[in-house]
Amino acid sequence: LAKVDPDLFSICVITVDGQVYQVGDYNQLFTIQSISKVFVYGMALEEHGRDYVLTKVGVEPTGDAFNSIILDERSKRPYNPMVNAGAIATTSLIKGSGPTERLNRMLDMFQRYIGHEIFVDISVFMSERTTGHRNRGMAHLMLNFGMIDERIDEALDLYFQQCSIMVTCRDLAVMAATLANNGINPMTGERAVDARYVRDVLSVMYTCGMYNFAGEWVYKVGLPAKSGVSGGIIVIVPNQIGIGVFSPLLDTNGNSIRGIKVCEDISQEY
Amino acid sequence: LAKVDPDLFSICVITVDGQVYQVGDYNQLFTIQSISKVFVYGMALEEHGRDYVLTKVGVEPTGDAFNSIILDERSKRPYNPMVNAGAIATTSLIKGSGPTERLNRMLDMFQRYIGHEIFVDISVFMSERTTGHRNRGMAHLMLNFGMIDERIDEALDLYFQQCSIMVTCRDLAVMAATLANNGINPMTGERAVDARYVRDVLSVMYTCGMYNFAGEWVYKVGLPAKSGVSGGIIVIVPNQIGIGVFSPLLDTNGNSIRGIKVCEDISQEY
Amino acid sequence: LAKVDPDLFSICVITVDGQVYQVGDYNQLFTIQSISKVFVYGMALEEHGRDYVLTKVGVEPTGDAFNSIILDERSKRPYNPMVNAGAIATTSLIKGSGPTERLNRMLDMFQRYIGHEIFVDISVFMSERTTGHRNRGMAHLMLNFGMIDERIDEALDLYFQQCSIMVTCRDLAVMAATLANNGINPMTGERAVDARYVRDVLSVMYTCGMYNFAGEWVYKVGLPAKSGVSGGIIVIVPNQIGIGVFSPLLDTNGNSIRGIKVCEDISQEY
Amino acid sequence: LAKVDPDLFSICVITVDGQVYQVGDYNQLFTIQSISKVFVYGMALEEHGRDYVLTKVGVEPTGDAFNSIILDERSKRPYNPMVNAGAIATTSLIKGSGPTERLNRMLDMFQRYIGHEIFVDISVFMSERTTGHRNRGMAHLMLNFGMIDERIDEALDLYFQQCSIMVTCRDLAVMAATLANNGINPMTGERAVDARYVRDVLSVMYTCGMYNFAGEWVYKVGLPAKSGVSGGIIVIVPNQIGIGVFSPLLDTNGNSIRGIKVCEDISQEY
Repeated sequence: LAKVDPDLFSICVITVDGQVYQVGDYNQLFTIQSISKVFVYGMALEEHGRDYVLTKVGVEPTGDAFNSIILDERSKRPYNPMVNAGAIATTSLIKGSGPTERLNRMLDMFQRYIGHEIFVDISVFMSERTTGHRNRGMAHLMLNFGMIDERIDEALDLYFQQCSIMVTCRDLAVMAATLANNGINPMTGERAVDARYVRDVLSVMYTCGMYNFAGEWVYKVGLPAKSGVSGGIIVIVPNQIGIGVFSPLLDTNGNSIRGIKVCEDISQEY
Repeated sequence: LAKVDPDLFSICVITVDGQVYQVGDYNQLFTIQSISKVFVYGMALEEHGRDYVLTKVGVEPTGDAFNSIILDERSKRPYNPMVNAGAIATTSLIKGSGPTERLNRMLDMFQRYIGHEIFVDISVFMSERTTGHRNRGMAHLMLNFGMIDERIDEALDLYFQQCSIMVTCRDLAVMAATLANNGINPMTGERAVDARYVRDVLSVMYTCGMYNFAGEWVYKVGLPAKSGVSGGIIVIVPNQIGIGVFSPLLDTNGNSIRGIKVCEDISQEY
Repeated sequence: LAKVDPDLFSICVITVDGQVYQVGDYNQLFTIQSISKVFVYGMALEEHGRDYVLTKVGVEPTGDAFNSIILDERSKRPYNPMVNAGAIATTSLIKGSGPTERLNRMLDMFQRYIGHEIFVDISVFMSERTTGHRNRGMAHLMLNFGMIDERIDEALDLYFQQCSIMVTCRDLAVMAATLANNGINPMTGERAVDARYVRDVLSVMYTCGMYNFAGEWVYKVGLPAKSGVSGGIIVIVPNQIGIGVFSPLLDTNGNSIRGIKVCEDISQEY
Repeated sequence: LAKVDPDLFSICVITVDGQVYQVGDYNQLFTIQSISKVFVYGMALEEHGRDYVLTKVGVEPTGDAFNSIILDERSKRPYNPMVNAGAIATTSLIKGSGPTERLNRMLDMFQRYIGHEIFVDISVFMSERTTGHRNRGMAHLMLNFGMIDERIDEALDLYFQQCSIMVTCRDLAVMAATLANNGINPMTGERAVDARYVRDVLSVMYTCGMYNFAGEWVYKVGLPAKSGVSGGIIVIVPNQIGIGVFSPLLDTNGNSIRGIKVCEDISQEY
């Protein structure tokens, strides 16, 4: 992630009827990183229903950093699906016989949101898999507390793979617009996620989407959003627009500096 | 590999001064599979020199199938770098600190031959990694005979990754033309491999490139070539042209049926 | 195994009514090694029945060495349960939820044959697990051919553990006498194995028990027997006696030199 | 551990000149569990010196339970070698080429303290290895913080193996007497640990040996001691006696109830 040009910058806004407004480096590829958590959570809801998923992953915001090793031992659940521990737990819920089928089903889901074939940056995947000792440690602790099942290494692989999916700023905007449009991709007309679960996804983004900046975010912007460590942000104005921003320069919370500024400005207008 | 359309067909011929002749589905992406073995062998030669590599992997053709478990126990070497055992051994020779750096160095090498950024089909990679029990078994046996070092799982990952690189028929032709042009990519002018080792690579392709059809190939076509199980073939006419053919329908040796026919026709003319 | 005193020597003969005749170092502990294969085969027969086990492991003698990598690809079975590949396959049939329960069930079985608590030489176990690349390679190849199931590493651990069980020459004689006594330990009166399967076990020992010396053994000694690479041999005279011999000096077939001589002498008398 | 008879009870006192006083079930075998941590810490000191070991593992008592996941992130060290995280770190310091040699060197060290050959309960080892998710999680987190090196799985194996060593109450007393005798086993006259490091070992036992009961222990008993979850305790009266107590009934801190009572009584007399 270190070698990305920090001056890259782009904004893309897509309406629920498919109009596109974009400026800057909107075709630059980067890895989606934590923004993927939103969509995998939606997939877990579709496959297992709200009640079951709630027994596995909470929806409580936490003031801790995204990679905190604090687990909610009392409730035997990670706090929410937007911290790493919670995302690993939702990832472990993806159905399929064998790791390849689970990977393919997950990629299919992302492709419905994005509207075209996607690729994984295998070098980023391998690097995160090799050095992700903290995530691996958390996964073993979750197994110890009975939070996830035995297939630790597979769940972590799938987690590192989802983080390494390559997207453009425009792709992010299409994904955001799909959520704004109740789960139907406005560019392809294809349904990406059951309408019943869009509200749950947006609700968790609203309270837990911006790491430990989430509280201030709700106060200043007040829109469901999710950021990733590679500099991307998605913001949803339900029933109206989806926004993608890309700017790799991060603040100390791991959020894109210019990205947050853009979102604050946009939120003034809605 | 099963879901590829068997009717896809394309031929691309590129001269050493960069002229391109192409027909059919020349932009169709497919995984390179065993054709990668040629280029990784060249990389091993560059990194370790001819003499050392020869102590690790022989250059003897073998009548056995590409995935034979027969190892040359006497010489403590796989027969040649074009059978799976030999390719795993040459892959294990790639230098770098850690699996990610070795992967990146290998991808850089392929990108010099191809002339643009390449991607790995992560779903094919995962599938081959999960089900590659025969290759995994051979790797452990080679370790038992002292043929390769302890880093079995990493070498196998790198082997499955190289096989899963996505190329087009046109990419194959550029790679072949680079070998025909003594190691310089005719489209970019960049050197992909040291000229000293091009002859070794072509020589092994000549005798061992077409699985257990190699003997008949030398008789009928008489040009250095390499086929892959996804239906690709590269053929080199040294100092003149590189040829890529893609046609997924295979014969029982694992070679592309129409690909071989095309090559026989072309060889008539040179 | 290298540091064992080659001059150690002991013979123990136990009758089916419990009389004991012993000379030499009969209390010296050593690892049971391949002699364990006999008893694990009996356990597999008890747990799955003769017909099912026969679909997984053949009963054909093979002229190849005990650690041959030749697998019977046609019948999709290892040749017999006395070669390593076959022993790994029978070991993988032991029932139990999780590796610890399978280990405990296997140790219980051995304890019924021996009549007292037994221990595993964990240092020999670790050493064989770390360096058993050939056995690991064979296991992956058997998985590739569908001969055994996915739990490769667990089956290999259990195989290396059974080989590392510590016994004395006297223990061997008790085990042999238990088989001679139709499955009832003559010292404790406890049944170690269902009488129905004793004949199958003895029959496989008769034809396949002495590695690639088996043919000559049948000719010269003509009694069911099994040797191990640490220098032990068991011989059974059905309904009469069980014999244990221990002498670490091996011939090139991996059989104890003095052990075979003793057996030839004893067989003269019966 | 569940199936041990809770009524077992024994005390053994051994003086530095080798006199033995013992009552109860002093020949009953049980696994040493956490008492092993004391001796492995001494081995780490011998192999690397006090200063280096201090950079890897602190000597600070902690009020947290023995299996706490709280790590001292600031100092990049586990709090002390008596909590699990610290014991895994000291275990990872054992020298040797390969896991078998490290195991053998560790077993040799224990045998010098005990004075006879020892065995590992392989079933307890396998069980702890299979279910030790918390310890595995902590090891990955320590790797993440740079507290230990990459050989996680090997260090954990060695940790689970040391905990599974089988001892009697009398063995414990000999080990304790060896520490009381400045590192020389009073029964064999053999040196088990360099005299320079005995004081460090006793000092850490004094402050951190009794889990989160350590403070009360210092107040009430005031002697260096270490307990294990299987019901053993060792207590050292320097230059005078070593005491072993075995009673499997534990209090909520994981200490032997009758064991602590015995120690309080004994401490009255010294």
